[in-house]
Amino acid sequence: MKKSLTILLLFISFNLILSQKIERIEPANWWVGMKNNSVALLIYGKDISDLQPAISYPGITITENKTVENKNYLFLTLQINPDAKAGTVKIKFSKDNKVVLTKDFPIYAREANSANRVSYSSKDAILLIVPDRFSNGNEKNDIVKTTLEQKLDRNNEDARHGGDIQGIINHLDYIKSLGYTQIWNTPLIENDEPTYSYHGYAATDFYKIDPRFGTNEDLKKLSAEARKRNIGLIWDVVLNHCGSEYYFIKDLPEKSWINYPDSENRVRTNHLKTTITDIYATEIDKEEYLNGWFDGHMADLNQKNPLLAKYLTQNIIWWIEYAGLSGLRVDTYSYSDKNFLADWTKTILEEYPKMNIVAEEMTRNIAQTSYWQIDKENSDGYKSYMPMMMDFSINDNIVTALNEKSGWFSSWRKVYESVANDFLFPHPENQLIFPDNHDLDRFYSRLNKNLENWKLGIAMYMTIRGTPQFFYGTEVLMTNDKAGSDGQRRSDFYGGWKGDSKNAVTEIGLTDEEKEAKKYFSTLLNWRKTNDAIANGKFKHYAPTNNDVYVYFRYTDKQKLMVLLNKNTDKVTLNLSRYKEMITNYFNAKDIISGKDFSFENTIDIPAKTAMILEIRN
Amino acid sequence: MKKSLTILLLFISFNLILSQKIERIEPANWWVGMKNNSVALLIYGKDISDLQPAISYPGITITENKTVENKNYLFLTLQINPDAKAGTVKIKFSKDNKVVLTKDFPIYAREANSANRVSYSSKDAILLIVPDRFSNGNEKNDIVKTTLEQKLDRNNEDARHGGDIQGIINHLDYIKSLGYTQIWNTPLIENDEPTYSYHGYAATDFYKIDPRFGTNEDLKKLSAEARKRNIGLIWDVVLNHCGSEYYFIKDLPEKSWINYPDSENRVRTNHLKTTITDIYATEIDKEEYLNGWFDGHMADLNQKNPLLAKYLTQNIIWWIEYAGLSGLRVDTYSYSDKNFLADWTKTILEEYPKMNIVAEEMTRNIAQTSYWQIDKENSDGYKSYMPMMMDFSINDNIVTALNEKSGWFSSWRKVYESVANDFLFPHPENQLIFPDNHDLDRFYSRLNKNLENWKLGIAMYMTIRGTPQFFYGTEVLMTNDKAGSDGQRRSDFYGGWKGDSKNAVTEIGLTDEEKEAKKYFSTLLNWRKTNDAIANGKFKHYAPTNNDVYVYFRYTDKQKLMVLLNKNTDKVTLNLSRYKEMITNYFNAKDIISGKDFSFENTIDIPAKTAMILEIRN
Repeated sequence: MKKSLTILLLFISFNLILSQKIERIEPANWWVGMKNNSVALLIYGKDISDLQPAISYPGITITENKTVENKNYLFLTLQINPDAKAGTVKIKFSKDNKVVLTKDFPIYAREANSANRVSYSSKDAILLIVPDRFSNGNEKNDIVKTTLEQKLDRNNEDARHGGDIQGIINHLDYIKSLGYTQIWNTPLIENDEPTYSYHGYAATDFYKIDPRFGTNEDLKKLSAEARKRNIGLIWDVVLNHCGSEYYFIKDLPEKSWINYPDSENRVRTNHLKTTITDIYATEIDKEEYLNGWFDGHMADLNQKNPLLAKYLTQNIIWWIEYAGLSGLRVDTYSYSDKNFLADWTKTILEEYPKMNIVAEEMTRNIAQTSYWQIDKENSDGYKSYMPMMMDFSINDNIVTALNEKSGWFSSWRKVYESVANDFLFPHPENQLIFPDNHDLDRFYSRLNKNLENWKLGIAMYMTIRGTPQFFYGTEVLMTNDKAGSDGQRRSDFYGGWKGDSKNAVTEIGLTDEEKEAKKYFSTLLNWRKTNDAIANGKFKHYAPTNNDVYVYFRYTDKQKLMVLLNKNTDKVTLNLSRYKEMITNYFNAKDIISGKDFSFENTIDIPAKTAMILEIRN
Repeated sequence: MKKSLTILLLFISFNLILSQKIERIEPANWWVGMKNNSVALLIYGKDISDLQPAISYPGITITENKTVENKNYLFLTLQINPDAKAGTVKIKFSKDNKVVLTKDFPIYAREANSANRVSYSSKDAILLIVPDRFSNGNEKNDIVKTTLEQKLDRNNEDARHGGDIQGIINHLDYIKSLGYTQIWNTPLIENDEPTYSYHGYAATDFYKIDPRFGTNEDLKKLSAEARKRNIGLIWDVVLNHCGSEYYFIKDLPEKSWINYPDSENRVRTNHLKTTITDIYATEIDKEEYLNGWFDGHMADLNQKNPLLAKYLTQNIIWWIEYAGLSGLRVDTYSYSDKNFLADWTKTILEEYPKMNIVAEEMTRNIAQTSYWQIDKENSDGYKSYMPMMMDFSINDNIVTALNEKSGWFSSWRKVYESVANDFLFPHPENQLIFPDNHDLDRFYSRLNKNLENWKLGIAMYMTIRGTPQFFYGTEVLMTNDKAGSDGQRRSDFYGGWKGDSKNAVTEIGLTDEEKEAKKYFSTLLNWRKTNDAIANGKFKHYAPTNNDVYVYFRYTDKQKLMVLLNKNTDKVTLNLSRYKEMITNYFNAKDIISGKDFSFENTIDIPAKTAMILEIRN
């Protein structure tokens, strides 16, 4: 009787061990030769913390094995010495000194020059794509059995439309032909949410491409194909939140991985970015800004938790190495813990010193934006490391300038005064400028579909200081008729789907205006990438006080551009003597827009409603 | 023959010497015991530079005798040693070693504690007066024979109306009864211009009270009478320009005393304050901002000229000592040379370390304003010394907040976000706040004569951080019906003239609304000056995100105020738990506005369209 009980217990125990599985090891691999040579593995499996991991590999050691509140997690830190060789580390998991499980953890060699990869800068122009809405290159992944949202409905602006990575790959030649040198896709990682999953900002797996977009291998292919065309790939990073269906949200390692883990007292963020810097802000307003949930369906991550912080940092380094990314863009930047943000950015830059990263701080308040740029000496002592900021101030002011009548404080003066605040930035040239993006109404719509004003605005984005980013379809005047509608802002790219009646690539179905816009846009963008004054030049602008003409220069020792933007409905003649600190009274130049050569003597005539970009010859 | 010629020549020469007069010595006196113990005298008279000055006075020596382009000027620097005694220095002017003229230059002893005089701060409230429009206390000086403008016409908003210093003296008891502790008069010095001379900003003698306002002695009397009532006197300083009829403009000491001395190429300022800080600004825009004339009839002074710089600096020290001033306000601050401004302010503060000075930088751009505050670490290395700035941002935002409907980014949120930028200021509490002034439309007019909103606004100006300044007549709801009209903004104070049908003091002719406003205003202002949390307290504000109620606290260790501004047309009930970092759930308080005592438990009810200022008892 006693014996049979022992056998029975052994049998049960044996079965428990057999049933013990490792569901995830994140990251799935690492590399030798990283500057930061330790990697913390999140190991997830039922009661995994009961097991004891061990490795035996030359140059690689376990430096920490950390268990947490939830027994289904183990955090295993490996140190990978510089002399370690690439290969496969076998992690053996033991219970009662018996190995019950073994997992492979590959260590790869890095690509040549990985650490010194070139990133984006003023020399580049970035195409922003919402992958679900750009092009359906692979109809087989339109609906994926394993995902929660099973609907594909192009008539529903909140549903998935079927765009994917293959669709982007198919358009790389077109993208190159327009003159782009970088692509920023809104997040491609898995968003396995039951509804409204297309946008990508509700991640359910930070390490996996959403199957509706393709596979991790497809991303690698996109990156490689893009690189062949001298196009870099910028990764959209979300540190503040993730999807409510994320496995670690449903089975939290520690309660402290998210803010307000108990739903009954949960609050939404108040979106008050000023609480970051406001010396008068209350603790409750600061708390609600930082820790309140961005969206009811997206868990707000608590980056103060050191394990989560490490997880979020390693994840991005993993993607950079894995997919050969050229740069990063960080969503909802200031909503995350600011000490974490500094550490995160600093760690990335230590690993990739030339990497560019741009942060979204969606405010027109430049004092607020400049607070975040690297090298800013803030009065509260905060040290940030973010290289580039998104310039929402110029975005708003260019639209206002183009739409409003001339006046003492209006029109171009708004842009002039927005840019004049650049003295607040330690690196004023390192700003992202954009006529619109996935969260804003389409530029052409905001300009009330005025093509002349659109051309003036595009000429400005092509030449003013900063790195321009355009939204897919801008070149063919895509619009959203309903202001404020995210679905319409992100409507399907013309010709991205088989049978589309309109096609931006072939120009089938395009109106004359759309064709004209596309030509104007691609002429400027292709010229832009060749110009030294754009890539490396200084900026100097003349106050547009009198005649509703904005004149500015971009210049290096080698190259000088004079940009003239005439908003008037009449021709304007400028006396060149005013510009003598930049240009002589007699000069030859090519106007990049009209393609014509000019010899100027004392004056310049600028036709009504016209931009001129003069590449000065002498 | 030869002898008679010699006699004749001697006779002519003698007559020339006899006819040689000294028209001015500026300043007319100085003091012993100044920290900076040298004073530069401007001596003006026909061909005065031909003469050789000398003095013989214990402890006082001539350290420099400077002649300039124009022979009618001498600049004589005296050093007054600390051990010199008060008395009269005789300056003897010689020609060919013969004394031909003697002038007295008195040296006075300083008043006790002159250097350490107390100035204005958050503890104070400032009344701004336009003297010509406040009260006619002396009809004898309404028209003065020696001045160019000979008209007095109360029906013409651009003409002189007859107000004067005696009119202000007559109202000191009234001013005190309202609760004011400081008076700022727009400039009282002579403006002997042919037309439009009432406003005071076109000085023709920096050392002389305009005879239509009274005499220098009258100013001294005003200061003494005000001081008896614990009211300080703030001097309005104009460094950028002076009247075209100024003697030294008509007979320039050196061409370089003014910008664009030759009228044919003269330009007007472009008013582009951003050129001060803009790293992209052109030289021509900077030049035109700084050196362009503010007004065609006001000569633009070039403070880069060291003699003028000294003249402008000494002049203000002279008035402080002479009239016992409590503080300064500087007009059109950034239009002057910024190195001069730093030196000027530093020199004043070295002489009067506790002196407060407020600068006018008329922009809503806080990055721009904060650039000028003392201790600001500017990225261009510029060191400013200005203690206080005028806050045009809050001015604009309070009006907008009161006029506009509630919304996510509107209403109180505008004020909240304006104040939130205070992190840019090294001394955020040192800002001048004002519902209006002589250059702005009247507050009640801007609020479309809505008394409820006016009361909310006034309650805010009485309690929010900073030093409030109100314009004469604000207490009785004075208006300007025509927006933008300077003349109407500066209309005659009710009852300032004999026979006025309306009188703010006696309340004859006031409407019920005007009486109600006056009572509300004076109750708050009189309370304000007694409150420690207002004078010395910190500020903390709750984001007005949800219910169009703005709640903030002022607090010291000794005193706590809770201010609640309900803009809704309905009663609002607040749950006290939200305010727990500042206040308990149960407390007693007196509402300063209603005068009622309350015991609060868990909630506070704020009636519709009502401000409450709770002085917390426990």
